[in-house]
Amino acid sequence: MLLQFHHETQRPLDPGCLLPQDAERSADQPGRAVVDFPVAAVLPAGGSGERMGLTTPKQFCSIFNRPLISYTIQAFERLPWIVMVVVVVAKDNHDLMLNIVRKFNHTKVKVVHGGTTRHRSIYNGLQAFSDSTDSSTPKPKVVIIHDAVRPFVEEDLLLKITLAAKEQGASGAIRPLVSTVIATTSESYLDHSLERAKYRASEMPQGFLYDIIFQAYQRCSEFDLEFGTECLHLALQYCGTNARLIEGPPTLWKVTYKRDLAAAEAIIKETLSVSACIIAEAEEEAVELAKTLQKNLNMMETDVIPCGKESNVQYLSKTRNFIHISASASSSLWVLEMVKCFEDIDHARLYPVVIVWVQLSMTKQSADSQETDEFMALASEVKQRNVLLYGIKIDHSKEWHPVWSSAAVAHLLQAWTCCAFRDALLHTSELEQWQRSLERLGQITLVLIRDRNMALTGQMLHV
Amino acid sequence: MLLQFHHETQRPLDPGCLLPQDAERSADQPGRAVVDFPVAAVLPAGGSGERMGLTTPKQFCSIFNRPLISYTIQAFERLPWIVMVVVVVAKDNHDLMLNIVRKFNHTKVKVVHGGTTRHRSIYNGLQAFSDSTDSSTPKPKVVIIHDAVRPFVEEDLLLKITLAAKEQGASGAIRPLVSTVIATTSESYLDHSLERAKYRASEMPQGFLYDIIFQAYQRCSEFDLEFGTECLHLALQYCGTNARLIEGPPTLWKVTYKRDLAAAEAIIKETLSVSACIIAEAEEEAVELAKTLQKNLNMMETDVIPCGKESNVQYLSKTRNFIHISASASSSLWVLEMVKCFEDIDHARLYPVVIVWVQLSMTKQSADSQETDEFMALASEVKQRNVLLYGIKIDHSKEWHPVWSSAAVAHLLQAWTCCAFRDALLHTSELEQWQRSLERLGQITLVLIRDRNMALTGQMLHV
Repeated sequence: MLLQFHHETQRPLDPGCLLPQDAERSADQPGRAVVDFPVAAVLPAGGSGERMGLTTPKQFCSIFNRPLISYTIQAFERLPWIVMVVVVVAKDNHDLMLNIVRKFNHTKVKVVHGGTTRHRSIYNGLQAFSDSTDSSTPKPKVVIIHDAVRPFVEEDLLLKITLAAKEQGASGAIRPLVSTVIATTSESYLDHSLERAKYRASEMPQGFLYDIIFQAYQRCSEFDLEFGTECLHLALQYCGTNARLIEGPPTLWKVTYKRDLAAAEAIIKETLSVSACIIAEAEEEAVELAKTLQKNLNMMETDVIPCGKESNVQYLSKTRNFIHISASASSSLWVLEMVKCFEDIDHARLYPVVIVWVQLSMTKQSADSQETDEFMALASEVKQRNVLLYGIKIDHSKEWHPVWSSAAVAHLLQAWTCCAFRDALLHTSELEQWQRSLERLGQITLVLIRDRNMALTGQMLHV
Repeated sequence: MLLQFHHETQRPLDPGCLLPQDAERSADQPGRAVVDFPVAAVLPAGGSGERMGLTTPKQFCSIFNRPLISYTIQAFERLPWIVMVVVVVAKDNHDLMLNIVRKFNHTKVKVVHGGTTRHRSIYNGLQAFSDSTDSSTPKPKVVIIHDAVRPFVEEDLLLKITLAAKEQGASGAIRPLVSTVIATTSESYLDHSLERAKYRASEMPQGFLYDIIFQAYQRCSEFDLEFGTECLHLALQYCGTNARLIEGPPTLWKVTYKRDLAAAEAIIKETLSVSACIIAEAEEEAVELAKTLQKNLNMMETDVIPCGKESNVQYLSKTRNFIHISASASSSLWVLEMVKCFEDIDHARLYPVVIVWVQLSMTKQSADSQETDEFMALASEVKQRNVLLYGIKIDHSKEWHPVWSSAAVAHLLQAWTCCAFRDALLHTSELEQWQRSLERLGQITLVLIRDRNMALTGQMLHV
């Protein structure tokens, strides 16, 4: 990532449940205390993705091998006060959707078939609750309607929407208009522009008393079902319910174009990279290096812990980034041990976990090609468990390293002489070299954690 | 990039002038033939970036070490029929802006100071042309107003806007509404929703006969200058000019939030990665590998050319991605030679150039640590010239390589026995191994080219 991400006042929001204990923590949060009535969600996901220029509908496009819709489902499922999530998909995507539910272990999802338009799909979703023969989907008090392609919805907003819907009958998230809205003549000329302050963009989620929105759909016309887009409008027109409007954050935006997938990926990557756990083996040099690295990674929250303690298990579930520092040739058994811990707590199911193995060598060593192959084989194996393993070798031997001098290269570029090639190499002092290595170690560790690049696992990098 | 970018109907657009000859090619394009009158652009860039949550105003945020505003300037500057680009910046950013103009060699730019609001800034920009004492800024026939934070504007649209403005007096780009627009009551309740089909979002660029828009600004009220946002509205209200509205592509969107920077970066990366030049050294194995790699990189346009020919210079300017394949230990002099060519044609000023050096080894070799250090030093040197050098070693020796067997790892994870660790390694056949290496070579080459990761230059990767 080469973006200059500076100090930010609008932190990107949590992409669904990042860590398993988030769900437990929610138990102490306002939601459960305030919402003492059943709430369900309906996610229309029947879209075809044409607008995006993709053959895969956007809700099924993957970020880290996980479809967007799974992120959105998780944003609801993690909340203990949401009892059910009805996902409405096109008939052709039914099996695909069931596979997603299975693979990512979604437990509150019911999949139903969509209609030919957005409103028909939502109506189908609502009908799932009115089927008195199916006891698995009892009628909720409040239903939240949300787009499958808006994965970054926070508990805070869902609560506000739910409570306003309970009180008022209907509620919806709004955002300020980004562009001026203009009325056009039929010949594509400007008629007039609207005064921005009086209007808002209507977004999702929206909340309704179930009885109201279901009645509105039962009463509305075929024309509405075919050409309408706005649920709030139906509630107003057919049940006389004026929705309460609630300002939502910018991260509510709808993943519409291909570029939005890159934006969503960037938000998820950033959220996954806020913290790391540095595990130092017992050697003094390893502990020393761990402390220095912690200082250089000051844009992340880091803990340094000793290797192999029983108590470390608790740390393992606090982050999805691990930096293991060893100062001598050591077995890689700890990698498998760690991966076993992750499997025990299902830690890598929703997001890939990163392990960066930093190997400090005190003597100038040649890389053993057998060692390189084994490391790559190990990485390839644990990748299948969604654990991304990278290596970094850092050399603290006494030998001086060569560098190219700028002046020499400039000379070569200018005069272009082939002779005396090695003369262009300078030697820098040991201390300078070490400082530079430490700096690069920090940069590369950060890049590996932030990018989570699947193609680079198993590489042993050098700094 | 782990996004699944599938077949797309809406290709992301050219981020400004990607290659130097684009500008020359434009000479044969419609623009110059049709536009036989002077056209200038005004880019208001006085914004503070507060909305984005950044300390740096978004137009000065960098992608590949180059501020966004430079991409936007380039989108205009590359067109021979645009005579001048007036950039309006806050007084505090004047020097910063001049440095950008110098560093990226912008030749048509005049920097002027902004006012306290968007309209005042645009007015200041327009006034630059009315100063009869400054012969460097003659009054244009048509002026295009565009946002500094919409870098992906195409010649096609700029032409339509310009010609419509010439004919009609005013013109503006529009887009369909993404969300329903609703009118709210003063108590935050839904009043009514607008019928989407009748309204459009007003975007940029907008074009005007210079005399009309300048007059509109001279006549408009202090209230307009303070609180207005819509130039089309001023032209209508104060000069009676109804703008012609022209539908623009989705890539016109305005970089507003931090996530939009990631989206813009993704578009630029993808555009930079559409082609590559594979340069094979003379050995038969290198030529063979080049052909195989070309097949595996079928999502890019690739040419395979022999190394060192005089005629290659023409290839060097056709792409910004180079894959050099050598089959024996060879000097890295060619890297400097290539960088010299880039400097001669100023090829790496606007976008980083990638060189992937693929080293095919026919015998099992240990990596020489001296060699590793020299490679890194060389990469670090050419990086200062915006050339990103990466290495990949591919091994075609007869030795069999170890891999972890899934079953063995599963066993270790389950039963957790520390003994017989190496038993978990299997040996695969030579052919299988080679196929796997070739596959990985393609993947990693693609990732290196697409990501253009600055922190990973100088690394010698293994496949």
